[in-house]
Amino acid sequence: MTTLGDIGVAAAINIGSAFLFFLAFAILRLQPFNDRVYFPKWYLKGLRTDPVHGGVFVRKFVNLDWRAYLGFLNWMPEALRMPEPELIDHAGLDSVVYLRIYLLGLKIFVPIAFLAWIVLVPVNWTSTGLEGAKNITSSNIDKLSVSNVHSRSERFWGHIVMAYAFTFWVCYILLKEYEKVASMRLEFLATEKRRPDQFTVLVRNIPPDPDESVSELVEHFFMVNHPGHYLTHQVIYDANTLAKLVKKKKKLQNWLVYYRNKLERTSERPEMKTGFLGLWGKKVDAIDYHTTEIDKLSEEIASERKKVTDDPKSVMPAAFVSFKTRWGAAVCAQTQQTRNPTLWLTEWAPEPRDVYWRNLPIPYFSLSVRRLIMAVAFFFLTFFFMIPIAFVQALASIEGIERIAPWLKPLVSVPFIKSFIQGFLPGIVLKLFLIFLPTILMIMSKFEGFGSISSLERRSASRYYLFNFVNIFLGNVLTGSAFQQLKSFVHQPANQYPITIGTAIPLKATFFITYIMVDGWASIAAEVLMLKPLIFYHLKNFFLVKTEKDREEAMDPGSIGFNTGEPRIQLYFLLGLVYAAVTPAVLPFIIIFFGLAYVVFRHQIINVYNQEYESGAQFWPDVHGRIVIALTVSQIVLMGLLTTKKAASSTPFLIVLPILTIWFYRYCKGRFEPAFVKFPLQEAMMKDTLEKATEPHLNLKGYLHNAYIHPVFKDSMDDEDDDDDTFSNNWETESMTVRTKRHSQRHTPLPSRISGTSSPPQSPFAGDGIQNEP
Amino acid sequence: MTTLGDIGVAAAINIGSAFLFFLAFAILRLQPFNDRVYFPKWYLKGLRTDPVHGGVFVRKFVNLDWRAYLGFLNWMPEALRMPEPELIDHAGLDSVVYLRIYLLGLKIFVPIAFLAWIVLVPVNWTSTGLEGAKNITSSNIDKLSVSNVHSRSERFWGHIVMAYAFTFWVCYILLKEYEKVASMRLEFLATEKRRPDQFTVLVRNIPPDPDESVSELVEHFFMVNHPGHYLTHQVIYDANTLAKLVKKKKKLQNWLVYYRNKLERTSERPEMKTGFLGLWGKKVDAIDYHTTEIDKLSEEIASERKKVTDDPKSVMPAAFVSFKTRWGAAVCAQTQQTRNPTLWLTEWAPEPRDVYWRNLPIPYFSLSVRRLIMAVAFFFLTFFFMIPIAFVQALASIEGIERIAPWLKPLVSVPFIKSFIQGFLPGIVLKLFLIFLPTILMIMSKFEGFGSISSLERRSASRYYLFNFVNIFLGNVLTGSAFQQLKSFVHQPANQYPITIGTAIPLKATFFITYIMVDGWASIAAEVLMLKPLIFYHLKNFFLVKTEKDREEAMDPGSIGFNTGEPRIQLYFLLGLVYAAVTPAVLPFIIIFFGLAYVVFRHQIINVYNQEYESGAQFWPDVHGRIVIALTVSQIVLMGLLTTKKAASSTPFLIVLPILTIWFYRYCKGRFEPAFVKFPLQEAMMKDTLEKATEPHLNLKGYLHNAYIHPVFKDSMDDEDDDDDTFSNNWETESMTVRTKRHSQRHTPLPSRISGTSSPPQSPFAGDGIQNEP
Repeated sequence: MTTLGDIGVAAAINIGSAFLFFLAFAILRLQPFNDRVYFPKWYLKGLRTDPVHGGVFVRKFVNLDWRAYLGFLNWMPEALRMPEPELIDHAGLDSVVYLRIYLLGLKIFVPIAFLAWIVLVPVNWTSTGLEGAKNITSSNIDKLSVSNVHSRSERFWGHIVMAYAFTFWVCYILLKEYEKVASMRLEFLATEKRRPDQFTVLVRNIPPDPDESVSELVEHFFMVNHPGHYLTHQVIYDANTLAKLVKKKKKLQNWLVYYRNKLERTSERPEMKTGFLGLWGKKVDAIDYHTTEIDKLSEEIASERKKVTDDPKSVMPAAFVSFKTRWGAAVCAQTQQTRNPTLWLTEWAPEPRDVYWRNLPIPYFSLSVRRLIMAVAFFFLTFFFMIPIAFVQALASIEGIERIAPWLKPLVSVPFIKSFIQGFLPGIVLKLFLIFLPTILMIMSKFEGFGSISSLERRSASRYYLFNFVNIFLGNVLTGSAFQQLKSFVHQPANQYPITIGTAIPLKATFFITYIMVDGWASIAAEVLMLKPLIFYHLKNFFLVKTEKDREEAMDPGSIGFNTGEPRIQLYFLLGLVYAAVTPAVLPFIIIFFGLAYVVFRHQIINVYNQEYESGAQFWPDVHGRIVIALTVSQIVLMGLLTTKKAASSTPFLIVLPILTIWFYRYCKGRFEPAFVKFPLQEAMMKDTLEKATEPHLNLKGYLHNAYIHPVFKDSMDDEDDDDDTFSNNWETESMTVRTKRHSQRHTPLPSRISGTSSPPQSPFAGDGIQNEP
Repeated sequence: MTTLGDIGVAAAINIGSAFLFFLAFAILRLQPFNDRVYFPKWYLKGLRTDPVHGGVFVRKFVNLDWRAYLGFLNWMPEALRMPEPELIDHAGLDSVVYLRIYLLGLKIFVPIAFLAWIVLVPVNWTSTGLEGAKNITSSNIDKLSVSNVHSRSERFWGHIVMAYAFTFWVCYILLKEYEKVASMRLEFLATEKRRPDQFTVLVRNIPPDPDESVSELVEHFFMVNHPGHYLTHQVIYDANTLAKLVKKKKKLQNWLVYYRNKLERTSERPEMKTGFLGLWGKKVDAIDYHTTEIDKLSEEIASERKKVTDDPKSVMPAAFVSFKTRWGAAVCAQTQQTRNPTLWLTEWAPEPRDVYWRNLPIPYFSLSVRRLIMAVAFFFLTFFFMIPIAFVQALASIEGIERIAPWLKPLVSVPFIKSFIQGFLPGIVLKLFLIFLPTILMIMSKFEGFGSISSLERRSASRYYLFNFVNIFLGNVLTGSAFQQLKSFVHQPANQYPITIGTAIPLKATFFITYIMVDGWASIAAEVLMLKPLIFYHLKNFFLVKTEKDREEAMDPGSIGFNTGEPRIQLYFLLGLVYAAVTPAVLPFIIIFFGLAYVVFRHQIINVYNQEYESGAQFWPDVHGRIVIALTVSQIVLMGLLTTKKAASSTPFLIVLPILTIWFYRYCKGRFEPAFVKFPLQEAMMKDTLEKATEPHLNLKGYLHNAYIHPVFKDSMDDEDDDDDTFSNNWETESMTVRTKRHSQRHTPLPSRISGTSSPPQSPFAGDGIQNEP
């Protein structure tokens, strides 16, 4: 049992390290040579340029102005200064609503903590349950918790009344927040500028037709069934090979630019070897070699492109169908098209940036099977992940290495290496797995066949939450592997399980306090330092950056990373709610986490993160649902705990709470969730009417024309190459009055740092440039 | 333990009584004076008239033609003769699909029984597990069951393989059937004649507007948001008081007709007393009295009607909105209208007959609260219904009566009455509760606020199924009250429960065989005899029938009664699937039930039942879902059973089955369920186009004009009274070209016998007359 003193020490260490991180951040961010690491968002928006023009040479890299260092926490009020509407403009609704989760934590836990400390702490503290039991292992923290109340005490009425108060408060705040977010979303969808996805519907599972091509079929189908509304459509090509070739060509072009620059600087033609990484092989003139290579690739690309566009087999049975009005699109997205509800499936098109192209053509039955497979796989991953890890850990032990690779024996017997293997390797294996877990979950979501990056992240988030719930929350409360818990869960009576957890919960308070400090405080503070992007940026800058474009690409702004970030927050909601009535001492630590994280992430969102897509806060129903789950778990745990305390007269009053909570969830689902799935016709009609009045001669067809082209075609259309024109002509014979004038260099978003795997391989393309059209 | 002999005796008794019922039926149905009892459907359709014209007097009542009695089971092949498409025309899709449930039972269980008897019976029979155990209580039935196999035997592989085979077979048949029913439904919706509900959408939760009336608001809203599609609408009036008055007036008018008839026959003016039931009070001239009373009531009705139509407060915040095309209605029904998804809720309008008027104006929040209350109430009803019954039973005992009503003591001490009270009263109390249970469940569904009779019945059916599952299936398997089971379920480990059930299941085989014979065979045979309607018809005919209309109303054709019938069938599916792998001896009894019931209900549907509404087989997803539940339960029970048999090596292979079954359910849900909720746009468009081509000058507005008027207004519009005209004028000022020419007398459907409570108090009104318009 940890005493208050131990916790004080842990707190001091963690506060200290958080302080150090902040100090390092304050210094590093002021150095001009780190500017692109700490303010990439502004670079990507084109609002900031390198501070390299003029001035002393040193000034380019080091900030010598001592006044800048004085207020080293100045960035905090700065981060809070930008008002919400501006922030929506600056970073999108997703980011703003994501920040509201932290605010929600504060709104929930500050009053709860206040109430708990006023009512429950005195009730617990003045009890003498632990003294009576002469329990030597009890700490001061335990004196503040419900453990200190005598069995059968009438004082438990206090806890029950508080449980009611907490439940009503949480539900009230959740309701208000859901209302607010729903209206923010609708406002965002209504007031924002014209976007292609407002007019477009994604059609999947187009049945094959022996007489017509997919394109003809789509046109006829929607001409007939949505007459007067259908405008145009865009078939989806299987362009994976093409994308690969284009990527290769780009790389070669980069090298060509680099060698040309070198030629200019040194005035001697650079040479290179053709072999692996330029380390061996025949020596050739680098510029000539790259020019011919690029020409060769261009031809290959042209023929592949021809193949993709001409070969009907490379047209996938899915299409983006655009309508003349938002109303038409809203109608099509929400209705069933044909008898067979698994054909001609329509849904709102994701934002162009958000499309995950590879999954669009998966047929319905296959999706269904994939979902089953992944459900089973996830079950095994959650409950049995320790088995392969234990196996690898066994291999990574001294004996394992000696058995498999006897020739390493002399090396292994070196004392330092031996102790490293014995002490660290097993831990590292586990840690590596946990680091790769979000990636594994993201791959699983991709296999499941979701069609947009946002839905992939949402799915991964809910899986990650479940994993955390089982392996971090239950795993630490019950101290056993998930599989052992599953076994005991199956072999225990149903009413025994909450009791087991309830008994263990107060004992684990100090552990979770430490966990919150390490995982919550210190690592949030480390987040702001951006250590990994900082190091990588400088490494790349030193070794790899050849062109301006490369420097652009060396920046790694990352993104919020909903799939990892949100489940982490949810763990704090869970801990806070579970301990609110049991050990209120946990609450202040959680409040500090939420406050700190709010400031840090607000800063990051303003200055660093670059959103990959904009889903319009579609994740909120998930967030809401998981907080409700946490609330229900907390009620059941309290019931279990009070049962062990033999508070038989008062415990039954708690049964009402989960029932009311679940009902509250269902009510909210019916009341608000449609706002996140459907688009109301009234709003669509208002927007359409307004647009017709203000822009009567809008060429919508031209506007929508290129919105949903596979990025590989899009990128190449911006290139200066001639061969693209043939393609564009081939692509579309009709007139196209509004050309996109995109500035692709400045707008290239980069794959996120955290959710690196979430961006499709073809990702780097700018979708929002289009919005700035007149 | 019952032996094979005991079962033989029981079978003989039940087969005998079934035979007697059939014999009685064969004789009674041939008597002309019973014609209206056994062929009411044809009377209601106007295809059969009383066989009273001409002929000997006796012939009117008794059939003297001896040849008619020869083939006393002739009705059976006759019932099977009508082909399905004709039956759909004759009785509607609901009835035909309901019959398919019985066919589905045959399709599932005949091959399963065949396979089980070929494979499992020899495996079980040749085992010696019961001999070895020297189990004296075992019967011959048990020798056929899995109980006879030794623990740890390798023979269990046979049961597992069979479980797989059964699961795949059931899923295959379910899939085919779902496909078939879905396509039948879509065909039915597409090929049927024009119906008002194809063009109409029910709008609920219209928000109050201070400036506009509900009617104006609805018109403006849909004019704006569905321009070019909106046609007309019909507000809903709160007409409950009016309905009561109209009903009263009708009764008086009937009496007036009766007295006028009497006057004609006897040529002396009939007199009557004004007091209760005409038993005392002042003597008055009956005809004069009734005329003045009717006049008084007419005035009252007129003023009430004026109040209802003029007072804006009697307009409820709901409306039926009709569109110019089916496409427009399909779009409106499937989309969200406004930001707030709980306002302007749209759904397909139920068929006019199907509307449950009283529930239409309930607001969303209230619905949500009602659902919660009913969920809790149903929980208590299911698990604690024995408590009030035990209380009443205590009151109904000798001691209870003596205590409450001491003056009855002499009566109670009469030996015959005493033994009756002791022996029968407690049983009768329970039986009365079970008889009223469907009514109670229907009242609960009504309170929950469903807007159509079909959905009320579907909801009651699913509740009744749950009640049966807990109290009949589990109650008899585990022999204890539902509450005791709940308690033991909560206090047992989760893995123990299937084991408990699994152990008890084989022991209960003989009980359930007897249950099937009594409840399944004999009572199905009793159904065809229509004993209650027969008696009531003759009683009414003798004492009450005054006019031809009364005779019409004395017929009680009843209806299928989905809310009681379907859960009963589901119990047989459950028993069949559970015992298929455990005691195959049960299967033949179930097959006989399904075969017999199929013939009997086909006969009833053709000749007797009068459908109250047509929902287009919307209940099929429920039926499908419950069979899947039964399948899953059977798999879990088998797992539990094999665990007790210590077949540890083979049992884990069964875990795959429930997972696959649940996946199958989800797949089917996605694949087929939308066909029962939505209406595909393609179908709507095809039908619209066709109609436009064939009937270019159709006055749809006139056609839809009166479709969705509260029946009380509708009925009165057919009346000959003058005061209705003022109302109709008031009602609608626009021109109305197509007048309804309805023959209300012939078409008046009557409330169902079984689901009597399901018809609204205003029910008797004809909605289908309208379909016969040119």
